[in-house]
Amino acid sequence: MASWLQIPKNSPFSLANIPFGIISSSKITSRVPAIAIGDYALNLNVFASSGGFSQLPAIQSHLDVFNQPTLNAFAALGRSVHRQVREYIQKVLGADTPYPQLLKDNTSLQKEALLPLSEVTNHLPMQIGDYTDFYAGLNHAYNIGVLFRGPDNALQPNYKHLPVAYHGRASSVVPSGTPIHRPQGQILANPAADPKVPTFSPCKRLDIELELAFFVSQPNDLGKPVHINNAEDHIFGVVLMNDWSARDIQAWEYVPLGPFNAKNFGTTITPWVVLIDALEPFRTTGIEPGNRDSLLPYLREKRAENAYDIPLEVEVTNAGGKPTVISHSNAKNLLYSFPQMLAHHTITGCNLNTGDLLGSGTISGKDKQTEGSFLEQTNGKTPIKLADGSERFFLEDGDTVILRGAAGTEGNYVGFGDCVGTILPAVKLAF
Amino acid sequence: MASWLQIPKNSPFSLANIPFGIISSSKITSRVPAIAIGDYALNLNVFASSGGFSQLPAIQSHLDVFNQPTLNAFAALGRSVHRQVREYIQKVLGADTPYPQLLKDNTSLQKEALLPLSEVTNHLPMQIGDYTDFYAGLNHAYNIGVLFRGPDNALQPNYKHLPVAYHGRASSVVPSGTPIHRPQGQILANPAADPKVPTFSPCKRLDIELELAFFVSQPNDLGKPVHINNAEDHIFGVVLMNDWSARDIQAWEYVPLGPFNAKNFGTTITPWVVLIDALEPFRTTGIEPGNRDSLLPYLREKRAENAYDIPLEVEVTNAGGKPTVISHSNAKNLLYSFPQMLAHHTITGCNLNTGDLLGSGTISGKDKQTEGSFLEQTNGKTPIKLADGSERFFLEDGDTVILRGAAGTEGNYVGFGDCVGTILPAVKLAF
Repeated sequence: MASWLQIPKNSPFSLANIPFGIISSSKITSRVPAIAIGDYALNLNVFASSGGFSQLPAIQSHLDVFNQPTLNAFAALGRSVHRQVREYIQKVLGADTPYPQLLKDNTSLQKEALLPLSEVTNHLPMQIGDYTDFYAGLNHAYNIGVLFRGPDNALQPNYKHLPVAYHGRASSVVPSGTPIHRPQGQILANPAADPKVPTFSPCKRLDIELELAFFVSQPNDLGKPVHINNAEDHIFGVVLMNDWSARDIQAWEYVPLGPFNAKNFGTTITPWVVLIDALEPFRTTGIEPGNRDSLLPYLREKRAENAYDIPLEVEVTNAGGKPTVISHSNAKNLLYSFPQMLAHHTITGCNLNTGDLLGSGTISGKDKQTEGSFLEQTNGKTPIKLADGSERFFLEDGDTVILRGAAGTEGNYVGFGDCVGTILPAVKLAF
Repeated sequence: MASWLQIPKNSPFSLANIPFGIISSSKITSRVPAIAIGDYALNLNVFASSGGFSQLPAIQSHLDVFNQPTLNAFAALGRSVHRQVREYIQKVLGADTPYPQLLKDNTSLQKEALLPLSEVTNHLPMQIGDYTDFYAGLNHAYNIGVLFRGPDNALQPNYKHLPVAYHGRASSVVPSGTPIHRPQGQILANPAADPKVPTFSPCKRLDIELELAFFVSQPNDLGKPVHINNAEDHIFGVVLMNDWSARDIQAWEYVPLGPFNAKNFGTTITPWVVLIDALEPFRTTGIEPGNRDSLLPYLREKRAENAYDIPLEVEVTNAGGKPTVISHSNAKNLLYSFPQMLAHHTITGCNLNTGDLLGSGTISGKDKQTEGSFLEQTNGKTPIKLADGSERFFLEDGDTVILRGAAGTEGNYVGFGDCVGTILPAVKLAF
């Protein structure tokens, strides 16, 4: 797919992608919807106002969705509309566009509507209601299980029967680039001591989790589960997510109700939502087929292909240092698909709303340096060597973590852009 | 405290209370703020529009908060304003009101603004962002611990050091009176079998949890913990809460990340928010003092009195049957105070927003028939006898549960009203 717009070959935002986001700039101070294309954001508020969607009947009565500070109204229109809008924008931006008058030949509108990405500020794309985090990365669950229970009992008995999940904290989901203060709380200075007595401390085992996450488009009512065959139609699109984790706080607090303060201080997502349809060409069979007989029928998909082939990577840079890619993984390493997660979430009758965020869980490969967390890669014992020679068991103040992920090939990448976070020192407290 | 309005002596909504809520009726179709007084709701939108607040300077520039479909804007004004508004309304409704012209002598306004509670519909009082549920009921945690681990290890090592909590599901919090469909999901028909293989079934161990919960008024920024000494000023008010729980779904799903589907199908709250100041006269020392030395300083309160003396009860009625009060408890049975919960929640830097809901955890006493759940009272083995002679291990379809709680004495009760939910059969699904 070629565009009349110059698009760098390595851009995650090729014409094959067209992800949606919310931006502002020094010139547009209110938040507006946009799509990313190459090195530019196309301001959909300006584009729509200037008649840019005049050749797309399906959206005519809904043009107000492009004059909103979040994508919730657009997402709520449903998958058929998202698909048509994306394909239409691909046509408008295509080298042989049938509508050259709309943007290609309209240089004054280009000046107003096409903004260099370097000059825009990205915001959270959706007003998030609830955020749920799954645990569908089989290798991650296994690796963590080995650390805690040994290889014979690494996976809990429920793991291959249902997508384990917990409710997360929605208020602290932030867009890429937001710095994260090192959290403080109760940790065990000496976990072996008896009785166990906690100390108050900045987290000493601050970690990342490499995840994908998806936003809900159309809601379901309380008491009305979504059928597995319809679940994908409730999915708006996908982002990369770093589920920052305080391992020492978690180890002390998590019995018996799961992680809480260890996760609630920040979760970073990429700001461009890649539509579920944009990922369709990369569908593949994951670790086990989605239609496997061992699943209860409410989780059994029609087809085997329940995963996406999306290479992922984790890069760490210390303050003023050189970047080091410490891990290469792939979205194929998920045991459950997004529709399976959604069907399971609603099977009790739980209602999902437009803008709800559902995370995949940490995506680790099987081999060394394919792990999606420091805990798995170092276990606090074997350090990671960074390019400048320094070593890491966990994150230090000033470290910057970048998650990346893109499917496809050069010139046609469908990617998420960088998911960036820098660790700031713990805030000073007085008691 | 006496009112010129006839208030039944056993009303939870005495002049000493003045709880806030959101109502509609056949005549007022949009949702409006109100307070409850005796058998009436005072429509604050009508009252404010008619100059009802003319003698309260503090609220003059904020009268629009009474023209909103939730209490969030009012709550965000802060504790000083809530206190003044409550005291002002007490004066307006007092037998010797200094402002008789505002309502007492204005019968046409009374007709318009004072609506019989039987004729109004209650709605969720707040737009809830995140919902968190604590586990601060010491006796409940002990009782459950005995069931799972025996009396010697009933409490986890962290229990007396921090208020254990998990993130809950905000979307399915519903106001009293909303029926609850029996949830369905994966359960173990034979928990002792090896390998464990789940079956799909309606929940067979459907339970309640008797809790209090509080709403957040003023928010805190991400990265900025709330000091324990200031925490109470971030609390708007308190409601009763029934955290419906599917014990068999929970037992299978909860390792290693805690309850998820077992809790996400519905959580019922009373619709009238009792201001934190209204509960102040009932402050008492709980199980252990709030200023105990064993707490880390960020959780240590200035004063010992960290609980409220609020008698609570659980009533169950089968379809068409007689009501049976199956349990009497008291809010004193909480090990941690609301300010301690809030300080702990934010110590990592987690941001709380106006409207966030924080639950106490199940409030059980030490004795028989003081338990806040069926699981504790029956353990699935010793049935509860209802007034009509039928027996219950857990809830059956058609059962109605009512939680009640009121502090104070006859004529001056500060109560929550009924927290009601009826169990509907599981919805029929086709796979």
